[in-house]
Amino acid sequence: MNKSSNTYWHAATITRPDRQKLNGHSSAILWFTGLSGSGKSTLAHAVEEELYRRKCRTTVLDGDNVRHGLCGDLGFSEDDRTENIRRIGQVATLFVDAGMIVLTAFISPFRIDRQRVRMMVEEESDFIEVFCDCPLEVCEQRDVKGLYQRARKGEISDFTGISSPYETPANADLIVKTAGRSVEECVADVISYLEDRGLIAKA
Amino acid sequence: MNKSSNTYWHAATITRPDRQKLNGHSSAILWFTGLSGSGKSTLAHAVEEELYRRKCRTTVLDGDNVRHGLCGDLGFSEDDRTENIRRIGQVATLFVDAGMIVLTAFISPFRIDRQRVRMMVEEESDFIEVFCDCPLEVCEQRDVKGLYQRARKGEISDFTGISSPYETPANADLIVKTAGRSVEECVADVISYLEDRGLIAKA
Repeated sequence: MNKSSNTYWHAATITRPDRQKLNGHSSAILWFTGLSGSGKSTLAHAVEEELYRRKCRTTVLDGDNVRHGLCGDLGFSEDDRTENIRRIGQVATLFVDAGMIVLTAFISPFRIDRQRVRMMVEEESDFIEVFCDCPLEVCEQRDVKGLYQRARKGEISDFTGISSPYETPANADLIVKTAGRSVEECVADVISYLEDRGLIAKA
Repeated sequence: MNKSSNTYWHAATITRPDRQKLNGHSSAILWFTGLSGSGKSTLAHAVEEELYRRKCRTTVLDGDNVRHGLCGDLGFSEDDRTENIRRIGQVATLFVDAGMIVLTAFISPFRIDRQRVRMMVEEESDFIEVFCDCPLEVCEQRDVKGLYQRARKGEISDFTGISSPYETPANADLIVKTAGRSVEECVADVISYLEDRGLIAKA
C-alpha cells in the first residue's frame, strides 16, 4: 500500500553510473543470510575490510546497528521481522543507488522476504544472496551471545532454528560454508565471486 | 520504545574516520528544510552536482524517492510525518557512518522532529540544518507541481503553509534565501559553508 500520492520523482542529475565511475566499481547488495551464529556479521565485516583495502566504497548493515535505530520500534514477531527486512531492503537500495557495495547481515529467515528485497532493486542481479551455510548444531555450539541456551530454556520466543523456522535459500547466488573453515577462506569465496562477476577489479 | 533486546553492537572494523580518509572529506547531513516550492530538492541536487565535480561521495534523500520506498506505508498526518522524519534521520545517520555527505530535502515542518534528528547523530555538528528561506507567496506563485492550487481548493489536506503549520528554524546552521536568486548563487552559499567548516577542501 502506498499512501503517498501527491509526490513526484525527481530525476537526480548525478546518476548511479556516475557514482560507479567515480568509485571504480559496481554497486550491489551482498545479502548474507543464515542462522544466528552462522558467521554472517563476522564475514560481512571481514569482506568489507578486504574491500576497503581495495579502495571500494562499502557499508555494513546488520541486525545489531539497524535494530537500535531505524527498526528500534520493531520486535521479533513474524510481522515485525517482515517489516524489518522490508525497511532494510529499501535502505540497501538507497545505498546501491549511491554507488556503494552494501553488505547486510540479517538472519532473514523467510524466503518470501528475501525475494521481496530482490524485487526492490533496479536489476535483479544487484541483489546477491549469500547463504552462510552452517549446521544448527555448530551454531548452537558456538552460541557467542548465549542466545541458543536462553532459547532452549524458553526465555526467548520466536528464536530462529529453535522455535521459529529458517527457510534455506533455494537459489542462493553464493553459498559459503562457514563450519570448520577460517574467516579468510570464507572471505576469499566472496571476493572471488565479486571479481568473477566483474563487480570489482581483480586484485 | 525499543523492543529489540537480545541484540549487541558489533564494533565495525572499518571506522568512519577510515572512510573519511579514503574519501578525502568529512561526512555530514545537510538537512534542507523549507516550504514546498522553496527550492530544497533543486538546491540539494545542484549542490550534489558541485560536490561530485570535487570527487566527494554524496547522496540525496528527498521526499519523493523515500516516500515511494522506505516510507511508502506512511501518509501526511502529523504522526506519519514524524515517523517519516525519524526514519529518514536514521537512514541519514547510516550514510554519515558510511563516510558520505547526505543531502536531505524534506519540508520537515516541525522543529521537534528536526531537533530529534540532530540528537541522532554522533556529534551535533554532523547535522547541518539549511533553511531554504522563501516567502509563502513566492512558493505559491511557483507552484511547480500545482499542489498549492489543489490545497487552496481543499483537495489536499494537511498541506504545509496552507492547512498545516511550518515552524521556521530558530537556529538554522545556514539560511539560504532562494527567492529572486539563481541556483548557482544558492549553491555557492552552501559550498562556502562546507569549505569554511573544513568539511571539504577549498576548490
